[in-house]
Amino acid sequence: MQHVFITGAAGFIGSSFVDRLLADGVTVTGWDNLSTGQLRFLDGASAHPKFRLVRGDNLDLPALTTAMKGADFVLHLAANADIKDGWAHPEKDLQQNTVATFHVLEAMRANGVRRIAFSSTGSVYGEAVQIPTPEDAPFPVQTSLYAASKVAGETLLSAYAEGGQLDEAYIFRFVSILGERYTHGHVYDFYQQLVAHPDRLRVLGDGQQRKSYLYVQDCVDAVLHVARTHTARDAKHRTQVYNLGTAEFVQVNQSIGYLCAALGVKPKLEYTGGDRGWIGDNPFIFLDTRKITATGWKPQLTIEQGIGRTLRWLQANRWVYGARHPAPAAPR
Amino acid sequence: MQHVFITGAAGFIGSSFVDRLLADGVTVTGWDNLSTGQLRFLDGASAHPKFRLVRGDNLDLPALTTAMKGADFVLHLAANADIKDGWAHPEKDLQQNTVATFHVLEAMRANGVRRIAFSSTGSVYGEAVQIPTPEDAPFPVQTSLYAASKVAGETLLSAYAEGGQLDEAYIFRFVSILGERYTHGHVYDFYQQLVAHPDRLRVLGDGQQRKSYLYVQDCVDAVLHVARTHTARDAKHRTQVYNLGTAEFVQVNQSIGYLCAALGVKPKLEYTGGDRGWIGDNPFIFLDTRKITATGWKPQLTIEQGIGRTLRWLQANRWVYGARHPAPAAPR
Repeated sequence: MQHVFITGAAGFIGSSFVDRLLADGVTVTGWDNLSTGQLRFLDGASAHPKFRLVRGDNLDLPALTTAMKGADFVLHLAANADIKDGWAHPEKDLQQNTVATFHVLEAMRANGVRRIAFSSTGSVYGEAVQIPTPEDAPFPVQTSLYAASKVAGETLLSAYAEGGQLDEAYIFRFVSILGERYTHGHVYDFYQQLVAHPDRLRVLGDGQQRKSYLYVQDCVDAVLHVARTHTARDAKHRTQVYNLGTAEFVQVNQSIGYLCAALGVKPKLEYTGGDRGWIGDNPFIFLDTRKITATGWKPQLTIEQGIGRTLRWLQANRWVYGARHPAPAAPR
Repeated sequence: MQHVFITGAAGFIGSSFVDRLLADGVTVTGWDNLSTGQLRFLDGASAHPKFRLVRGDNLDLPALTTAMKGADFVLHLAANADIKDGWAHPEKDLQQNTVATFHVLEAMRANGVRRIAFSSTGSVYGEAVQIPTPEDAPFPVQTSLYAASKVAGETLLSAYAEGGQLDEAYIFRFVSILGERYTHGHVYDFYQQLVAHPDRLRVLGDGQQRKSYLYVQDCVDAVLHVARTHTARDAKHRTQVYNLGTAEFVQVNQSIGYLCAALGVKPKLEYTGGDRGWIGDNPFIFLDTRKITATGWKPQLTIEQGIGRTLRWLQANRWVYGARHPAPAAPR
């Protein structure tokens, strides 16, 4: 891993990988269409001699192919992650996730890049029967366009790898990721509300949905650990799937408790009702993470600690709430 | 089921559904881009007052949406089924299968059509650990772009159904289908060779691949039986997946034996070697069909009988070997 090409490099998770890889001495080419990514997340990286940012969209295959030249590993993180509003623009998941992943694989093929790690989601299991859910659990029923598009992306990686087009394909099924630069999700929304009106909090669903979270630096550790130890190289299949989470979960109500305690507020909770927050919300996601922990990786932070760090970062970076749209006109 | 819209209506399987539904008194709109479909397969149907053929491509969403108007059920069969040559044109599976299925679902949404049956494939299981393979088996490793694109299609149906956009979504994972109008696959290729040179037969792989086949009229029976009994309506999920095959499998060498006996030839067998015929070929596909047989359906023909009927049809319809490319310029 000498030169890593990162799609979604200006995003929350992408920029965290950029910084870590640069610190490790790796050359990094970042690729981002800046639709949700933030150039400010790359402030540190942009001064680094081994970093280059190319602004572009995964739907532009020729530009993607050119930008990828010289890389020996691809970290494909770019995606439309707007699960809640999937039905407002169903084409978005298809294009930005499924077709985009196909283009990343075709650009790799054109450039002879044969190793990839891909961020999938624990949502692929739909509403799993087996909890904690292991990697080999079936997932016959998809509950969101987002998860459906991630399944499609996974199957493309696998077909390319098993078809001899890749040497190593790592698929990571993420739980929700938290930490510095976190820009969407429960904690983000709740903090925004509590700043605006500390006396009340609107909660989608009944607050009893049980969710798993992982701290972003633990996520970075895990992916790089697996890729650097080449777990696919000696396995029967070139495609290796890992659940990525912790051995914990929390209720949405618990997250709210952590936040309110840290902020010293006691809002009136206004539940919208029902056992899920939106169509496609999953009332209980909890992954079996024995496969990834068996590689020697383990998370450093608990969910409560991760929420704490996220909150402190949001408090110090209130600009993210205003900065989401639109992205600046040109990369710097 | 008063008015069925069939994608791939001029194909081997599609035209068999057209004829059956017309015989049952159902109005049928056929949709086909005639890239591999044959107008001659619709010779009977085209004279029927309840049949209409619209020539068009699933990638043309506006035309598809217009053509679908008035239908109350969609049978989505159109697909690129060229597994062997997937790597020659990887975009084809993505566009003609994944994106096409998305368009079919969007056209349904625009027209308020809320019931669909979809032809998926037993190949989605990749190289299954559990054989016979039940519907809830995991399928973490895909071995062809074709199967990957069918998984993508399945997940789209499921996301639409569970997201409230459909009332009933039936996914059928077909084994190889045989019978009248059969235009690609082992029997087709072997017969073509044996006509050209009865003394020798080139066999991809070692001939020991074990395959499952189903007679096309049994396939039509099964799909219509499930759709008409509305098995999804009272189930927990609006998405219902059925394996579709028989309780039998045969070795490629056995199929060759049936063919040679019927033709009275004794060719020298020339094996290309290896346990699979091509990249993505699966040395053993055998599906657990207890779920579909529990609905009351059962196949009428054995694999040997199906191969016999296929052969007799090919003998009487040698024109199909010349007629595959190109399709006539306009529908009639």
